[in-house]
Amino acid sequence: MTAIGRATIEQAAARIEPFAHRTPALTCRTLDDRFGAVLQFKCENLQKVGAFKFRGATNAVRSLSDGEAARGVITHSSGNHAQALALAARDRGIAATIVMPSSAPAVKRAAVEGYGATVIECAPTLEARESTTAAQIEESGAVLVHPYNDPRIIAGQATAAKELFEQAGALDFVLAPVGGGGLLAGTACAASAWCPAARVVGAEPAGADDAQRSFRAGRIIPSTDPQTIADGLLTSLGDQTFPLIMRHVHDIVTVSEAAIVEAMRLVWQRMKIIVEPSAAVPVAALIEQRLDVRGARVGIILSGGNVDLDRLPW
Amino acid sequence: MTAIGRATIEQAAARIEPFAHRTPALTCRTLDDRFGAVLQFKCENLQKVGAFKFRGATNAVRSLSDGEAARGVITHSSGNHAQALALAARDRGIAATIVMPSSAPAVKRAAVEGYGATVIECAPTLEARESTTAAQIEESGAVLVHPYNDPRIIAGQATAAKELFEQAGALDFVLAPVGGGGLLAGTACAASAWCPAARVVGAEPAGADDAQRSFRAGRIIPSTDPQTIADGLLTSLGDQTFPLIMRHVHDIVTVSEAAIVEAMRLVWQRMKIIVEPSAAVPVAALIEQRLDVRGARVGIILSGGNVDLDRLPW
Repeated sequence: MTAIGRATIEQAAARIEPFAHRTPALTCRTLDDRFGAVLQFKCENLQKVGAFKFRGATNAVRSLSDGEAARGVITHSSGNHAQALALAARDRGIAATIVMPSSAPAVKRAAVEGYGATVIECAPTLEARESTTAAQIEESGAVLVHPYNDPRIIAGQATAAKELFEQAGALDFVLAPVGGGGLLAGTACAASAWCPAARVVGAEPAGADDAQRSFRAGRIIPSTDPQTIADGLLTSLGDQTFPLIMRHVHDIVTVSEAAIVEAMRLVWQRMKIIVEPSAAVPVAALIEQRLDVRGARVGIILSGGNVDLDRLPW
Repeated sequence: MTAIGRATIEQAAARIEPFAHRTPALTCRTLDDRFGAVLQFKCENLQKVGAFKFRGATNAVRSLSDGEAARGVITHSSGNHAQALALAARDRGIAATIVMPSSAPAVKRAAVEGYGATVIECAPTLEARESTTAAQIEESGAVLVHPYNDPRIIAGQATAAKELFEQAGALDFVLAPVGGGGLLAGTACAASAWCPAARVVGAEPAGADDAQRSFRAGRIIPSTDPQTIADGLLTSLGDQTFPLIMRHVHDIVTVSEAAIVEAMRLVWQRMKIIVEPSAAVPVAALIEQRLDVRGARVGIILSGGNVDLDRLPW
């Protein structure tokens, strides 16, 4: 396990500061009243590319030596990390290659290409993604930037919670969604450094509950056939994120699909901001009372806002 | 004409500060690139009740003497001002009566009642609204708080632009939508006090272009049968807002309905925030190139975010 402490997170914060938004921390009295708590929402949906992923990608890209950077970066992703890496690479003026499954929506491919990256299609299986990526690395020497299982990524994601503590002060709880665990591990490391009294709780869909099962078992239990509308949370924990989560996270809770949709709509309706299903998962945990936050000060990382406006789940 | 200068606006700001959000000023590189300008969006859609109207209503309610306040407040509105006045009154612990046309959507009535106000229905004509309101005032002695034609309201709305100048620094342009003119007049007064070099431009739907016609004619020409999706901009200028607009506003431009919908979707898609059609009108003016902002620093007041999520215009 690579320890990610205060100094590492501060270095990441300094590295990304010229490029990333310092996103607002918003409050909403209606939601406070509903849940009987003081909620502070860290709006990473308002981050560049619409997701916290830009923090980690920028920290990773900016951590490369000039020699490494000259070889370009590569990843396999059809989600927010793909856009994040594409923009982070463009900001540095280096090449980015994104391996995407042929099943990825055209709009996602266009977004990545819009940021100047090269998209390489592969068959829609994990094996094809990994072998296509490996072949590309072999050919071009590009540096792999994994979506979450990388200390530079985790340190970058940690900067969101660092800012939240600066903006909101001490908190009793910090909630974040968990897929591969980069955001949750980073959030927990930041809490450990800046607000050690805060309880850090991960939230995930019941239909993709590998993180809770892994957390309880004390070993990584990969996801098999996850089913959820929260398409950012389909991935399994990695050997870099899991030990940090075991060490610094207090609990992982699960939520129903209905609660995710209800939470998403609640945030849109009352806060006037667009969150994607994955980002609504911690709010769903409040709706389903998966933890007792009454009277507490609660930070919630709203992870992203990338949705298809023509296909809303209500 | 009641002059509304720096001291008046600062008093309003101090009065509302404990109650209103200091909303964020957001930027978006994609939109900057598209319009060739540096845009600063003042997010009044993230204000309490989802609209700038809460500023003016709170300033008006907090300006009342204890004796006036004890009589309660009243207005006629089916829009954002109704919710704003209801919440501002509740914050002060006084009664609010809202006269609404029987044609108002049940959801709007429920929202107002949710803030503790009493709703009185009337026939859906301006005459019925005014006579019902007058009868209520006669009976209860409640203080009328007009949606826009009131210096306290205008001074309250001016605080949004004041904050924007504090957050964004000097601007070359400030754009705001114009209906009854409370927001535009307030914005222009704030610019006159804090950034006199800024050109203040109002934007309205071509289908409700009474403000542009009035501005050009130099006298108030009321709206007759306005047709637009921007339902917050159907009203006509008043004798308090019009002279301030004539004095401090540089131009009023109009936009098409198609551009309003395009602008609304553009903001949702790229900025991940929910704006209502009225709020999208200044962005529509950029889409239709109604003013030349290339290379300029442009402030845009995003006036509100109250939309029916089940009835989106795309």
